Amino acid sequence: MEKNKKFVEAITPMDVDFAQWYTDIVKKAELIEYSTVRGMVILRPYGYAIWENIQRYLDDRFKETGHENVYMPMLIPESLLQKEKDHVVGFAPEVAWVTHGGEEKLTERLCIRPTSETLFCEHFSNIVQSYNDLPKLYNQWCSVIRWEKTTRPFLRTTEFLWQEGHTIHATAEEAKEETLRMLNTYADALKNFLAIPVVKGRKTDKEKFAGAEATYTIEAMMHDGKALQSGTSHYFGDGFAKAFDIKFADKDSQLKYVHETSWGLSTRVIGAIIMVHGDDSGLILPPRVAPVQVVIVPVAQHKEGVLEKAEELRKSISSYARVKLDASDKKPGWKFSEYEMKGVPVRLEVGPKDIEQNQVVLVRRDTREKTIVPMDELETKLKELFDDIHNSLYEKALVRLENMTSEAADFESLKEAAETKPGFIKAMWCGKLSCEEKIKEEAGLSSRCMPFEQEEIADTCVCCGEKAEQMVVWGKAY
Amino acid sequence: MEKNKKFVEAITPMDVDFAQWYTDIVKKAELIEYSTVRGMVILRPYGYAIWENIQRYLDDRFKETGHENVYMPMLIPESLLQKEKDHVVGFAPEVAWVTHGGEEKLTERLCIRPTSETLFCEHFSNIVQSYNDLPKLYNQWCSVIRWEKTTRPFLRTTEFLWQEGHTIHATAEEAKEETLRMLNTYADALKNFLAIPVVKGRKTDKEKFAGAEATYTIEAMMHDGKALQSGTSHYFGDGFAKAFDIKFADKDSQLKYVHETSWGLSTRVIGAIIMVHGDDSGLILPPRVAPVQVVIVPVAQHKEGVLEKAEELRKSISSYARVKLDASDKKPGWKFSEYEMKGVPVRLEVGPKDIEQNQVVLVRRDTREKTIVPMDELETKLKELFDDIHNSLYEKALVRLENMTSEAADFESLKEAAETKPGFIKAMWCGKLSCEEKIKEEAGLSSRCMPFEQEEIADTCVCCGEKAEQMVVWGKAY
Ligand SMILES: [Zn+2]
Ligand SMILES: [Zn+2]
Repeated sequence: MEKNKKFVEAITPMDVDFAQWYTDIVKKAELIEYSTVRGMVILRPYGYAIWENIQRYLDDRFKETGHENVYMPMLIPESLLQKEKDHVVGFAPEVAWVTHGGEEKLTERLCIRPTSETLFCEHFSNIVQSYNDLPKLYNQWCSVIRWEKTTRPFLRTTEFLWQEGHTIHATAEEAKEETLRMLNTYADALKNFLAIPVVKGRKTDKEKFAGAEATYTIEAMMHDGKALQSGTSHYFGDGFAKAFDIKFADKDSQLKYVHETSWGLSTRVIGAIIMVHGDDSGLILPPRVAPVQVVIVPVAQHKEGVLEKAEELRKSISSYARVKLDASDKKPGWKFSEYEMKGVPVRLEVGPKDIEQNQVVLVRRDTREKTIVPMDELETKLKELFDDIHNSLYEKALVRLENMTSEAADFESLKEAAETKPGFIKAMWCGKLSCEEKIKEEAGLSSRCMPFEQEEIADTCVCCGEKAEQMVVWGKAY
Repeated sequence: MEKNKKFVEAITPMDVDFAQWYTDIVKKAELIEYSTVRGMVILRPYGYAIWENIQRYLDDRFKETGHENVYMPMLIPESLLQKEKDHVVGFAPEVAWVTHGGEEKLTERLCIRPTSETLFCEHFSNIVQSYNDLPKLYNQWCSVIRWEKTTRPFLRTTEFLWQEGHTIHATAEEAKEETLRMLNTYADALKNFLAIPVVKGRKTDKEKFAGAEATYTIEAMMHDGKALQSGTSHYFGDGFAKAFDIKFADKDSQLKYVHETSWGLSTRVIGAIIMVHGDDSGLILPPRVAPVQVVIVPVAQHKEGVLEKAEELRKSISSYARVKLDASDKKPGWKFSEYEMKGVPVRLEVGPKDIEQNQVVLVRRDTREKTIVPMDELETKLKELFDDIHNSLYEKALVRLENMTSEAADFESLKEAAETKPGFIKAMWCGKLSCEEKIKEEAGLSSRCMPFEQEEIADTCVCCGEKAEQMVVWGKAY
């Protein structure tokens, strides 16, 4: 048991050092490995399989709502990036520049895409002539680069994988609908697939996307009370259309500018899964996204018939769930720790006694609760268990989100809450940038969003005391 | 019919200008659009959907044989690229270099991956300790950049999408087996999914991958007789393992170097689909890879009940095939041309007379053959038709490959064949680089491969007359 012991000891408990706990998990659950390239990580098979499941789920949702996948070049000429003035100001300081191709110095430098609005706009301007061509509902799965100064696996890396949706519409109204439809698609995916509750709302002007008229966001709360922006959806109005001259002949024969949206979700959400559900034994994966949903650990596997039964179970379970049999000669105790660390939702134990009694033992990762299940009820019980685990992970996270959300009516309470109560703080805001900046400087809080579900906590701005316009959720963020 | 006419006229016939025919198809079938980024194209929804189908098919095959997907950084430090000396000589002249990140000049420049052997090797050296860790069977779906001087959509572009498999094994034998297993996976995919016959064989040293001990290839023949290298699989021996110090403790406790393979297939195969199957009316897609397998074109759709029946058919077909209903107000003739251009394998026509007689008309894209099918036999007939079309496309391509393959026993016949007979030429070779180079210079032929199925065409080298070692397939290539 030497190795097992060492293995378990190696995780730093959350309460001791949350950041180190996180780093321990991403490495020890074999989600990532560091590379020698600054700020870039390697997604290992287990980590990448989580992303593949998220991809498959979202891609199906996108296609159901009429979206089509395309692929744009990964490089953007500097002059193209500069066409929309707010956009270039926002992104130029953090892009990687290609200056040489082979032996030749380029006459114009190219950046690796930090996001692809400019490329999509140029393409749209070439392919759209009339209202018949609208809407265009495009999506792209790719990697992007943003030259970050400090990086953490999944949360902030120089390169990351994501999808970016880009759509154009004949009217502002349709584009606004699309923006919110996709925000809701993200929120539903987090709830129904990742068991993560979120706060939905609009970003303040300070926090919105470079070039957008409005940015909407879903904000999840991590175990330590910090916020993680988990997906954003932007409404551009006709700003980009004017910069890139994307016009169409409408039914009334008038030439009009299109209205545009974009929306993105990245491997960042894997960070959210870890920090919302994990515990001191490691990762806890919600069953729907878990690469392995059930791991079979044979007990006393040297005894006659045990491995055969385990393999028979693996084969039958594989027709309705993602299952793995660990028949290696490691001790069961080592295996228990290993798959707890990896967050496999259900462990199935089967030994000579179980075989005799035609049963198996199921152990939930989240609560460690054990159930003895007759073999012929296994499929039904497993499926129920997956739903139970999903729902209970979601409920637990929702209770945390609610319990760790406080309110502040004046600046002193806001500062006190910022210091003493980790989590979200609801407070009123007048809408002025100066107040938002003062709250950042003096209380260390950023505005996470102006939630769609508004409450009237007070009449006046928590900062300046003038008339309040919005309730804002404030917090510290990853 | 104005628009319809213009549309059809716009394709250059193959015999007039094959290159222009190809370019017309990729644009007019809406597979790609050119971008302003040098040598990079935009994969439009229809083109990308073909790639998605190929991805799904291959990914399933890879996973069935135990391969796992990972994701490596897209940038490679110059020092890492230089670790294997043959590899860097082969790739350094054609990479794109990143020299600046944000405002900062990098201390070491980074290239955008042209292929990822170096990154995989570095990773393997970090994660492999003992024979228990072997084999590692990894694959990655990504885009790569090679700074090409002249480019053509799909065939040769600065950026392209591909998969690259990278595996390490305890023994040379296992690695060699893997190399051939994956070559066969490619050949089977081309045959069973894309209806393309290939010649399988080994590359000469001149044509092999930079750093490989042996490169194997599948070579397909295009309509014009030129070869298209459609997938390659490399055996590295322990060359990279030594350069990157990838060692493991074997069962006998000895430290040994691993043996390595890599294999790749790219969006290039879409070029092969076009140039193997297409005709003067446009693309012809084999049914298994076609994004739309059946297009429903209603006839006299203003008549009562026609559109309702068409929609009913669409819905029922969608449970077993990829189907599209074109209910737009364009004329049927326009629609016929449009979906012929796009290579949709089967057109389903349904009008008032058909409805009355409870039948539909099916038209094959490849032969234009029409069949009248009773509604209640539709599913069976469609599935039969898909298989028929697949098989007949394959047979047609195979006959062409055979008919356009000639033999040459001496240098004069080789040169004559090179000038007068487009296609592959089988001829014996002594194994010397000087003969291979002379054949290239004087006959304009490159060695495509040394086929696994060898024939004894003569005893002596077609070039120098010395003792022959191999039969080589020679040809002109894309
Ligand atoms: Zn204020
Ligand atoms: Zn010779």
